[in-house]
Amino acid sequence: MRRINFINPFGSVAYDEIIQKTLGHYCADGTEMVVTHLENCPPDIDFFYNKHMIEQALYEEVMRSEETGFDAVIVGCLYDPGVRVARELVDIPVIGPLEASFQMAANFGYSTMVLTDHRKAVPYLYDEARLRGQGNTVKGIEAIDWFVKDMIHDRAAVARDVVNLSATAARKLGAETVIMGCTIIAAIYQEYLMEGGKPAEVPILNPNLLALKMAESLADLHQKGAYTLARTGFYMKPYGHFEAEFKRARRIWNASKPDFSSQ
Amino acid sequence: MRRINFINPFGSVAYDEIIQKTLGHYCADGTEMVVTHLENCPPDIDFFYNKHMIEQALYEEVMRSEETGFDAVIVGCLYDPGVRVARELVDIPVIGPLEASFQMAANFGYSTMVLTDHRKAVPYLYDEARLRGQGNTVKGIEAIDWFVKDMIHDRAAVARDVVNLSATAARKLGAETVIMGCTIIAAIYQEYLMEGGKPAEVPILNPNLLALKMAESLADLHQKGAYTLARTGFYMKPYGHFEAEFKRARRIWNASKPDFSSQ
Amino acid sequence: MRRINFINPFGSVAYDEIIQKTLGHYCADGTEMVVTHLENCPPDIDFFYNKHMIEQALYEEVMRSEETGFDAVIVGCLYDPGVRVARELVDIPVIGPLEASFQMAANFGYSTMVLTDHRKAVPYLYDEARLRGQGNTVKGIEAIDWFVKDMIHDRAAVARDVVNLSATAARKLGAETVIMGCTIIAAIYQEYLMEGGKPAEVPILNPNLLALKMAESLADLHQKGAYTLARTGFYMKPYGHFEAEFKRARRIWNASKPDFSSQ
Amino acid sequence: MRRINFINPFGSVAYDEIIQKTLGHYCADGTEMVVTHLENCPPDIDFFYNKHMIEQALYEEVMRSEETGFDAVIVGCLYDPGVRVARELVDIPVIGPLEASFQMAANFGYSTMVLTDHRKAVPYLYDEARLRGQGNTVKGIEAIDWFVKDMIHDRAAVARDVVNLSATAARKLGAETVIMGCTIIAAIYQEYLMEGGKPAEVPILNPNLLALKMAESLADLHQKGAYTLARTGFYMKPYGHFEAEFKRARRIWNASKPDFSSQ
Amino acid sequence: MRRINFINPFGSVAYDEIIQKTLGHYCADGTEMVVTHLENCPPDIDFFYNKHMIEQALYEEVMRSEETGFDAVIVGCLYDPGVRVARELVDIPVIGPLEASFQMAANFGYSTMVLTDHRKAVPYLYDEARLRGQGNTVKGIEAIDWFVKDMIHDRAAVARDVVNLSATAARKLGAETVIMGCTIIAAIYQEYLMEGGKPAEVPILNPNLLALKMAESLADLHQKGAYTLARTGFYMKPYGHFEAEFKRARRIWNASKPDFSSQ
Amino acid sequence: MRRINFINPFGSVAYDEIIQKTLGHYCADGTEMVVTHLENCPPDIDFFYNKHMIEQALYEEVMRSEETGFDAVIVGCLYDPGVRVARELVDIPVIGPLEASFQMAANFGYSTMVLTDHRKAVPYLYDEARLRGQGNTVKGIEAIDWFVKDMIHDRAAVARDVVNLSATAARKLGAETVIMGCTIIAAIYQEYLMEGGKPAEVPILNPNLLALKMAESLADLHQKGAYTLARTGFYMKPYGHFEAEFKRARRIWNASKPDFSSQ
Repeated sequence: MRRINFINPFGSVAYDEIIQKTLGHYCADGTEMVVTHLENCPPDIDFFYNKHMIEQALYEEVMRSEETGFDAVIVGCLYDPGVRVARELVDIPVIGPLEASFQMAANFGYSTMVLTDHRKAVPYLYDEARLRGQGNTVKGIEAIDWFVKDMIHDRAAVARDVVNLSATAARKLGAETVIMGCTIIAAIYQEYLMEGGKPAEVPILNPNLLALKMAESLADLHQKGAYTLARTGFYMKPYGHFEAEFKRARRIWNASKPDFSSQ
Repeated sequence: MRRINFINPFGSVAYDEIIQKTLGHYCADGTEMVVTHLENCPPDIDFFYNKHMIEQALYEEVMRSEETGFDAVIVGCLYDPGVRVARELVDIPVIGPLEASFQMAANFGYSTMVLTDHRKAVPYLYDEARLRGQGNTVKGIEAIDWFVKDMIHDRAAVARDVVNLSATAARKLGAETVIMGCTIIAAIYQEYLMEGGKPAEVPILNPNLLALKMAESLADLHQKGAYTLARTGFYMKPYGHFEAEFKRARRIWNASKPDFSSQ
Repeated sequence: MRRINFINPFGSVAYDEIIQKTLGHYCADGTEMVVTHLENCPPDIDFFYNKHMIEQALYEEVMRSEETGFDAVIVGCLYDPGVRVARELVDIPVIGPLEASFQMAANFGYSTMVLTDHRKAVPYLYDEARLRGQGNTVKGIEAIDWFVKDMIHDRAAVARDVVNLSATAARKLGAETVIMGCTIIAAIYQEYLMEGGKPAEVPILNPNLLALKMAESLADLHQKGAYTLARTGFYMKPYGHFEAEFKRARRIWNASKPDFSSQ
Repeated sequence: MRRINFINPFGSVAYDEIIQKTLGHYCADGTEMVVTHLENCPPDIDFFYNKHMIEQALYEEVMRSEETGFDAVIVGCLYDPGVRVARELVDIPVIGPLEASFQMAANFGYSTMVLTDHRKAVPYLYDEARLRGQGNTVKGIEAIDWFVKDMIHDRAAVARDVVNLSATAARKLGAETVIMGCTIIAAIYQEYLMEGGKPAEVPILNPNLLALKMAESLADLHQKGAYTLARTGFYMKPYGHFEAEFKRARRIWNASKPDFSSQ
Repeated sequence: MRRINFINPFGSVAYDEIIQKTLGHYCADGTEMVVTHLENCPPDIDFFYNKHMIEQALYEEVMRSEETGFDAVIVGCLYDPGVRVARELVDIPVIGPLEASFQMAANFGYSTMVLTDHRKAVPYLYDEARLRGQGNTVKGIEAIDWFVKDMIHDRAAVARDVVNLSATAARKLGAETVIMGCTIIAAIYQEYLMEGGKPAEVPILNPNLLALKMAESLADLHQKGAYTLARTGFYMKPYGHFEAEFKRARRIWNASKPDFSSQ
Repeated sequence: MRRINFINPFGSVAYDEIIQKTLGHYCADGTEMVVTHLENCPPDIDFFYNKHMIEQALYEEVMRSEETGFDAVIVGCLYDPGVRVARELVDIPVIGPLEASFQMAANFGYSTMVLTDHRKAVPYLYDEARLRGQGNTVKGIEAIDWFVKDMIHDRAAVARDVVNLSATAARKLGAETVIMGCTIIAAIYQEYLMEGGKPAEVPILNPNLLALKMAESLADLHQKGAYTLARTGFYMKPYGHFEAEFKRARRIWNASKPDFSSQ
C-alpha cells in the first residue's frame, strides 16, 4: 500500500472536497490518498507575497508527511509552489502538478500549452515551461482570467469557459492538447464531466490526475529502494554546521508561526 | 489488473530473460508484465537499416498487443524505435524508455545525461534530447563503446564499465544523474546490483524501470477512460480511403513478411 | 556528365511526368536526370505507417542507384523520407528536398517558412525545422490542407490556393519567403507558372529545384573525389559481423518483398 | 541626492563592514548608500530553506526602505534572493547583483561566466543564466567551493583562489570575463586589490559594483518620474480584496515574526 | 564630472535639437552631455549601404571623442551602428541604445518587445534580440512603418501612432513593455509627453534615456579605474604590425574622406 | 556558361594565385571563374576596423561585377565580409563561404565545427553559427592561432597544424566534420593535398569549394529566371528618394576613395 498526501497549498478548507471527489476514482489499487490543506498561511496564492508565506507553511506539512509515513506528497497548485525547496528537506518524492503535466504531456499529443487562471500567472508559467517543458513542445501560455477564490462559487461558468477557451487557445497556438493550468479549474472541469458535461474539443490534461500517477510511480520506487534524489548539487542537504542551523531555524519558525486563525 | 507487453525489439530471444529477471520485482500490485521479442527481423538494432526493418515487425507486434488485450506496451530499446509511428496505429499507450527517462529524470536530480552503448548512437540521442529532453537539463550524451550483442556475454565487464564511466561522464558534463542509455546495459547493471554489486557514485536511472512505471500509470488512465491521444495532428489516424489503404498495406506485409528463421 | 535519380517515393507512376516536365528545364549542362518511382510499397505517404513501408522499398532503390552508376539521388518528398538512413547505405550523395530547401533558403530572403499539404505534416516539419533549419529563421509551418492523391486531379485549385495562402501565411508568420512544403504542390505550381499563371506575392521556393541544384553540386564533388561522408558517428556503416548481418537482412527482404501489384 | 539601501540578506552583521569598505569609493556624486542586514532570519543563505526564510524577512526590509524614503534597494547576494517578489511589493527599484551583472556584462567583454562559491549554487545559477543571461553569451557556471561563513575568516586564501581559479575557469569555458558569483567573495577580492594584490588575468566583474551603478541609474529615473514597473502581468500588485488580504498577512507576519536573537 | 558625447550617427543636423531637448533633463548631477552629429557621410541610415558609410565616419568621431577627453560615447541610433567595432578602437565605453535597452528592460517589466520605425529594420532587430536580448524575454519586433526623415516633419502623427500601435503590438506579442525602436521616434514621443500628451497604455522604454544612464554608470567606473574591456578575444586591439597598419589606414581615410557638403 | 567572380577581400594580390590553383580543378563544365582582389583598402582583414574599410571597397567590386555581367560573386573570406549588405545592392547571388559551409555541412556528416585562424575570430564565428548554423549541429569554434599574413609564408607549418589540430578539436567538441575557418588556410591545406599530403583524420570542409558550388547553383537559377531575393524586408532596396541618395553616396565615395597604392 502506498500513502499519498495531496496538499492543497491554501490556508483554506474550501478546495479539499472537490479534489477528493474528482481524484479519488483514479487512484490505483493500493493507493491511499488523503487531501489536506495548510494552516498558518493566507487562504489564496495568486500573488507572490502570499505564495511565499504559503510555501513556508508548506515545508512544515511536507516534513510532517514524511515523518508520519507518507510515501509521496503532491503540492496541489499549478505554481508548483515550494516543490523544489521541499525536495531539499525530505527523502520522499515531492510532486508538482505542473511539472508532472509537462513530463507526461507527450503521451497525449505532440504538443501542448497551458491554459491558466489569471494573466498574472502567464509569465511565471512561461518561465516554468522553458525550464521544465519537454523539448520545445509547449506552445505557449494563455489565461482564462478568473481568480481561484471566485471560481469555486460559479463552477458552471468556469466549466463553460474551459470548454470554449481551451479549443480557441489551442487553435491559436497550434497545440494538440491543453494542460489545465490551475488545479481548481481542473477539478471543476472534471466534476462537470462526471456530471455528464460535454468534453472540450481538444484533449485537456488534468494536472491533478497526472500528479497522482507520478506520485504513485515514485512512491512505488521509493518503497522498493529505487528512488533516490541526487544530493551532490541542487538538492544537497544541509550537513554538519548547516544541519544544526537548519534545525534551529525550523524550531524557531514553529515557535513563532503566524496565526491566521484569528480575525 | 493491468497487462503490459515489454517488447524487446530484437529478432532474438537472447535478452528476454534478463529483462524479466531485473524488472519483475518492481511491478506494482495488479501489474502483469510479459517480456516478448520479435520475429521476422534482424537480431540487432545498432545500425539504422536494421532498426528500420525491426520497426516494421514491431508495428505488427504492437497492433497484436492491442488486439489481444494488453493495456500498454513498452518498446524496450533506448532508440525508442517505432514509438511515435506505433502511436498512429493503436489506442493503447506506447512507451519508449528513452522518452520515459527524459520525462521522469527531474524527479531524481536537477540535471541528467545519457550514457549509451556505442558512439554511433550518440548523435541520434542528442537529437532526441533536443526534441524530448526537459528544458536544457540534459547535459550531453556519452558512449561506453560496447555493442549490445557483445555485452550480453561479458556482463561483469559491462557492469564494471558502467560503474567507472558513469561517474567520470557525469563529472565531465556536470550532470547530477545518468540515464543508462541502453536497455540491456541497464538490465546488466541492475542484475549486478541484485547480486550485491557496489552502486556507481552517481544515481543511475534504469530506463526499463521508468518505462514500466509510465506504462502502469497510462494503462490505469486508459482503463478508466482518461487516456486519449490527440488525433488532430501528428497522431492523426488513417481514415476513409487512407484507412482502406493502410489495411491493405498491412495485409500485404503480413502475407510476404521476411523470414529470418531460416539460414 | 552527372547522372541523377529523382525518386518519387510513392508506389505510383502518377507523379513522374509532372516532375520531369517542371524540373527538366533547370538541369545544368551535363546533367542527366531520370525520374523514377517505387514498387513494393503503398501509393501514398501521408500516414507514417505507409511512410515507413515506403522507406524500406526506397533503400533498395537508392542502393540500386549507386550500383547502376548514378552520381546522386534525390528522394522526392518533403518528409525527406529515409534520407538519413539511406546515407548509411551508399557513398553517393542522397538529397532530401526539405533539407536542401532549409539549406539554400537564406539565399532567397532573410527568413522562411514551410507551407505544407496537410496538417498532419505540420508537427513533423516543425521538428525538422528545429533539427535542420538555419539559425532561427524558419518562422513556422502552415498547411494548405490537401492530400497529395487529391491534388493531382485538381491542379488549378491547388495553384490558386498556393497563390492565395502563401502570401497570407508569410504575412502571419513574418516570413520573407515560403518553402512549398510538398514536392507535388511545388510541381503543380511550377506548371501553373510555365503556363503563364501569375506568381504569388511572396517568393516561393521550389524544393525540387533546390534539391536538383544540391544534387548537381554534390555529384560534381563526388566525381572529383571531394565528397566523403563522415563514417565515425551517425553515418557509421555496418562493418565486420554487422556487415554480414546487413547483407543477410537485405537479401531476405528482397526475397520476400511485399507485392503491391496484385489487387 | 539619491539614497540606496544595500541589504545584506543574512541575519548577521558579519558582512556589512567589508561591503561598505569596498563599495563606498565607487558611489557617484550625490549617492548616499547605507549597508544593512536582516533580523528575524538565519545567518546564512546557502541552503534553500534558509534562503526562503531570509526572503520573508527581506520583504519587510524592502518595504520599510520604501516607507523611509530610499530611492532604490540592492539585495546583496548572488542568488538575487526575493528580488522578483519584492518588486511586487514596492514602487522603488529593487536590484539583484546577479541580474545587474548579466545585464552589464557585455560592456566588459563579448562573453562571460559565473564563478560562484559552492557547487550547490551551480544549477541554480545555470537556470538564472538561461532566464536572465544575454543571448547565449553566458558560457557556464563554475564553483570555487567555499561556503560564505568560512571564507570571511580566511580572506587571503579566498583571494588567492579567485586569482587562480578565475583564469582557469574562463579558459575552460571560453569566457572573456568572469562574474564573481558571490557578493562576499567579490568584496574580499576587491579588498585584496585595494591592498595592492595582483589582479587576476581575466577581467573580473564585481556584482556589488554593477548593482550599485544600476541602482543609481534607476534611482535617478525614479526620482524624475521615468521609472515605472509594468503592473499588468508578472508584477501585478494585489488590489481590492487581495490588497486587504496582503495587508492582513503582512500584519500577522510582523506580529509573530521568528525571533533569531535568542539562543 | 563626467563628459558624454551623444553622437547622432547621421550626416545631418536635423535631429540634434530634439535629442538635447528631451534628454538633458535626465542627466545626473555631474553629467555634461553634448549632442553631436557626423560629417562625411549620408544624412539617413535606413539602408545598409548608408549605414556602412556612416559607420566609417562614426569611428573617427568616436576616436576623436576619446582623444578630446570624453568619458563615454553614445551612438544614437537603434541599429547600434558601429558600436562593437568602435569598442575595438577606444578604451572609453561605447554605448548603443538598443543594447542598453535590452540590458535594462527587465527592470521595467517581465518581458519586452521592440517597436521600430520601418519594416526593413525588423529582421535586423530580430537578430540583435537573439544575440543581445536578456533570456528569452524579447517577445518580438514590430514596425510602425515610418522612415526617420519623414517623421521629423510630422511629429504629432508619429506620437499618435506610438500611442496607438504600442498598446496593440504589446497585446499581440504578449509583451509587458515596449522598447521604442528608433531614437528619433523615442525623442518625438518624449517631447509629446513633455507637452502634456497622454502616455501610451503600455510602459514605453526610451532608449536614449537608458543609453544615457548606462553611459553615466560606465563613465564613472572608467574614471575610477573599474572599467576595462576584455582584449583577449572579440575586442582584441591591433598590435605590432597590425597597429601600424591600422594607423596607416586611418590616416589614408582621413586624407581622402568623402565630402558630403558639396552638392 | 556561368561567370563567377571570386573576390579576395584583401587589398593585396598575395592570395589570388593559390585560390586559382586550388579551386580551378573543381569548376563544373560551363563555369568561368576569375579570382580578383580589391584596391582602395587595407591588405589584411583580421581586425574589425580594417574589415569595415575593406567592405566599403568590396561593395564597389560587387556592383561592378553585376554591371560587367558576372552571374554570381563569392566573397573569399570566412568572415563573410559585407555579404548581407552587398545583397541589398545587386540582383546577382552573393555567396559567403562561411554561410555556404554551414548550409552544405550536413551533407558531409551529422555535425560540424569551425577551426579558424586566430582567436579574435572565435566569438565572431560563434555568433554567425547561431544566426546561420543548421539546427544545433555546429558544435563549437576553435582557433589554430595564425594570422593570415604570416601563414602564406610558411605553408608547410600551416598544413601540419591543420592535420593535427583538426582531429584534436573535432574530438574535443564531438564534431564529425571540420569547416576550415579561413579561406587561405583552406587553400593551403588543399594545395598540400594536391602535392600528395596525407589527409587529416576528420573530414575537412573547404569553404572555397562549397562557395563555388553554391555560386554555380544560384548562377544557374539566376540565368534561368529562378533566382530572386525577397525585397520586402531585410534586403529591401533603396527606392524613390533613398535611391537618389544612395547613388549620390556611391558617387561621392568613388570620387574620394582612399588611395592605398601610395606609401
